[in-house]
Amino acid sequence: LNVADLICKKRNKGILSREEIQFLIKGYVAGEIPDYQIAALLMAIWFVGMHNTETTDLTLAMADSGERVDLSSIPGVKVDKHSTGGVGDATTLIVAPLVAACGGKVAKMSGRGLGHTGGTLDKLESIPGLSVQQSIDSFIRIVADCGLAIVGQTADLAPADRLLYALRDVTGTIDSIPLIAASIMSKKLVSGSDAIVLDVKTGNGAFMNDMDGSEKLAKTMTAIGAKAGKRTTALITDMNQPLGNAVGNALEVREAIQVLRGELSGDLKTVSLALATQMLLVSGICADEAEARQRVESALSSGEALNRLARMIRAQGGHPEVIEKTELMPRASRQIPVLAGKSGRITRLDTARIGYCALLLGAGRQKKGDSIDPAVGLWMQKRLGDEVTKGEALAVLHVNAEDHIEEAFECFQKAVNIDAGRLEARKLIYKTISG
Amino acid sequence: LNVADLICKKRNKGILSREEIQFLIKGYVAGEIPDYQIAALLMAIWFVGMHNTETTDLTLAMADSGERVDLSSIPGVKVDKHSTGGVGDATTLIVAPLVAACGGKVAKMSGRGLGHTGGTLDKLESIPGLSVQQSIDSFIRIVADCGLAIVGQTADLAPADRLLYALRDVTGTIDSIPLIAASIMSKKLVSGSDAIVLDVKTGNGAFMNDMDGSEKLAKTMTAIGAKAGKRTTALITDMNQPLGNAVGNALEVREAIQVLRGELSGDLKTVSLALATQMLLVSGICADEAEARQRVESALSSGEALNRLARMIRAQGGHPEVIEKTELMPRASRQIPVLAGKSGRITRLDTARIGYCALLLGAGRQKKGDSIDPAVGLWMQKRLGDEVTKGEALAVLHVNAEDHIEEAFECFQKAVNIDAGRLEARKLIYKTISG
Repeated sequence: LNVADLICKKRNKGILSREEIQFLIKGYVAGEIPDYQIAALLMAIWFVGMHNTETTDLTLAMADSGERVDLSSIPGVKVDKHSTGGVGDATTLIVAPLVAACGGKVAKMSGRGLGHTGGTLDKLESIPGLSVQQSIDSFIRIVADCGLAIVGQTADLAPADRLLYALRDVTGTIDSIPLIAASIMSKKLVSGSDAIVLDVKTGNGAFMNDMDGSEKLAKTMTAIGAKAGKRTTALITDMNQPLGNAVGNALEVREAIQVLRGELSGDLKTVSLALATQMLLVSGICADEAEARQRVESALSSGEALNRLARMIRAQGGHPEVIEKTELMPRASRQIPVLAGKSGRITRLDTARIGYCALLLGAGRQKKGDSIDPAVGLWMQKRLGDEVTKGEALAVLHVNAEDHIEEAFECFQKAVNIDAGRLEARKLIYKTISG
Repeated sequence: LNVADLICKKRNKGILSREEIQFLIKGYVAGEIPDYQIAALLMAIWFVGMHNTETTDLTLAMADSGERVDLSSIPGVKVDKHSTGGVGDATTLIVAPLVAACGGKVAKMSGRGLGHTGGTLDKLESIPGLSVQQSIDSFIRIVADCGLAIVGQTADLAPADRLLYALRDVTGTIDSIPLIAASIMSKKLVSGSDAIVLDVKTGNGAFMNDMDGSEKLAKTMTAIGAKAGKRTTALITDMNQPLGNAVGNALEVREAIQVLRGELSGDLKTVSLALATQMLLVSGICADEAEARQRVESALSSGEALNRLARMIRAQGGHPEVIEKTELMPRASRQIPVLAGKSGRITRLDTARIGYCALLLGAGRQKKGDSIDPAVGLWMQKRLGDEVTKGEALAVLHVNAEDHIEEAFECFQKAVNIDAGRLEARKLIYKTISG
């Protein structure tokens, strides 16, 4: 096997065999195949795509590149959830307690935010005392005790993915459906759960802007899950505005708690309940959707889901009182409303730009390793389709540092279209796709 | 300027500006931009191509990456010639003396053979004593004295090209018209001549197999030449069989000498005269083609071209007696005919395979740095369109080492199609393209 020949084969739309893909990934992780050959291969894949068998083989080769988490000592069905990344998306903080309250075991390894999208670990760290760095033993014990835990990666899972992602990031090859699918699924396959629900975001705040791409990504990932023996369902959900009203770490935790307290309805709640319902189905805890839906709603209304979140917070070293007193989390020193410049209807929100506005205030990272301010962000007062009057608040910026305020302000204003036009037809949950 | 952004821009069919291309090439040569980003960029270029302005800017940036040869101390017009690479193509050994005999100055830096194609330096080194490694002073003095010199690169000309070519070679990005054009023209621009004639080979023994690609390459290169202020003409010539009958280093020198002695006609002579004619035109030595053609034919028939070759050989340290006694060059120990397996007409020759057959015998290199045997190779007895009788010799293999003889034998047989079919229409010189 010759690497340059395999690059040419892929470039010329050939289908790489399992053996060839394993050779490439093993050689790359071992340092025997240089970055520059893999970079050329990734760009060729970006152009010609991958056959389903290739994507599955790539995913499995990446999964096999490191350790696997063994969750077998936890009794019950382990069920995982993953979002492809959005703005104002605190669903994990709602969904994991809901599923745990219904008897599922949610052993979730999450990531940090990058660019305009947030990360669950950053959000959780807004809770005083809470640690997302847990040993694998502690992680397993917390899941067994509470039904859920949300932590950072406990080991070097799928090192091939870490290497490939870093390379893709600097070679213009991030936005490739097979590469995204293999990256996500390789980590899901090694993280030890029995079943997986994927939340594939679609719209102007998501990696995938169009429905075709989102559906292809969802189908690719559920097919990989099926072939790898993990029941996998994907929901395609809208990301043409922030899912919740809060964008920013402590703000999003507050909003999630409000949903779990039953104080708040809206898109964030709707998508969370749908995801939790699918998790009960895919894990086999419930046999049909009506039953699953009812179980989830009971877990919410009884307060058991909120109770589960409190138990997890305590187990991870945090102060569970935030459940009652969200003001225990860091708060920004100033709140500045962004006012509507004219009257009309909100016909479009540039969601990535709203995420970037929060980033400018300190809620996110331009690049890996940047520090963030848990307190800052913004709270949407108006959503898509709302009628607004000139001078009314569109959102409130939560601000600490003085720099970038002007820029963030302008960024938010530019993200909002107010006019007399019609809204594009949209749904909140477009499709459910099973592997 | 951000490299990843520029990769994405190119990938998305954007046109890179001169400033952006200079930034990329300077950064790469300086070691500030890593191989893997350039590899991804090259693959993106392989897929989307380059606009003419980009190819010119790339060529100029590559030319500016190192020294330029200053030939200004040589009186007269300096005219260069370059072939895109073929099999049995010893034209340089005929063309350079012809042009020198007509008053042109041919200061030629040549290359070595790789894969199925031969290299002029390897051929010349078949001549006992001759050295292709000359200092720049010696190179200039020989051209001034003899009208021609053929040497290896005297300095690190266009180091960007050296780096890019090595990277392309291992990343499946060799066969890209803008990258080939920029590679060739960057070296031509810095080698100091005033005018350039390009021999773009087309057919199954050339890099470019089809006329569309060959014509595009020719037009791209002549346009670059024109923009860079060098008069440039390209001939598109056939490479659907070895140009001469000889394939192998000493054998090709022998054939070239036979042409210069007036003993041999055929495709090699025809193309050589055409190239020399264009060199007299593009250099302004002759005003019209009829005059140029006549001058070239006189230089041949008078023996002045042969005399020029002898002078060059002596000046470069070789034994000029080879001009009379070609048997002074290394000769193979055995000659083995390849016989026709059936009677019929030769309707197709796989030229790359014939080149590979000679390589197997030791005449060429699988990879850079491999040693070669100057004596070995093959001599075609039959050419495209010839009628052959079963048992008649198609070619004679000139053999030294015993290994690979069987393989070479089979390789040649597979390269020859004998049947009752019709020949595809072909010409020897398809087109003349001026910048």
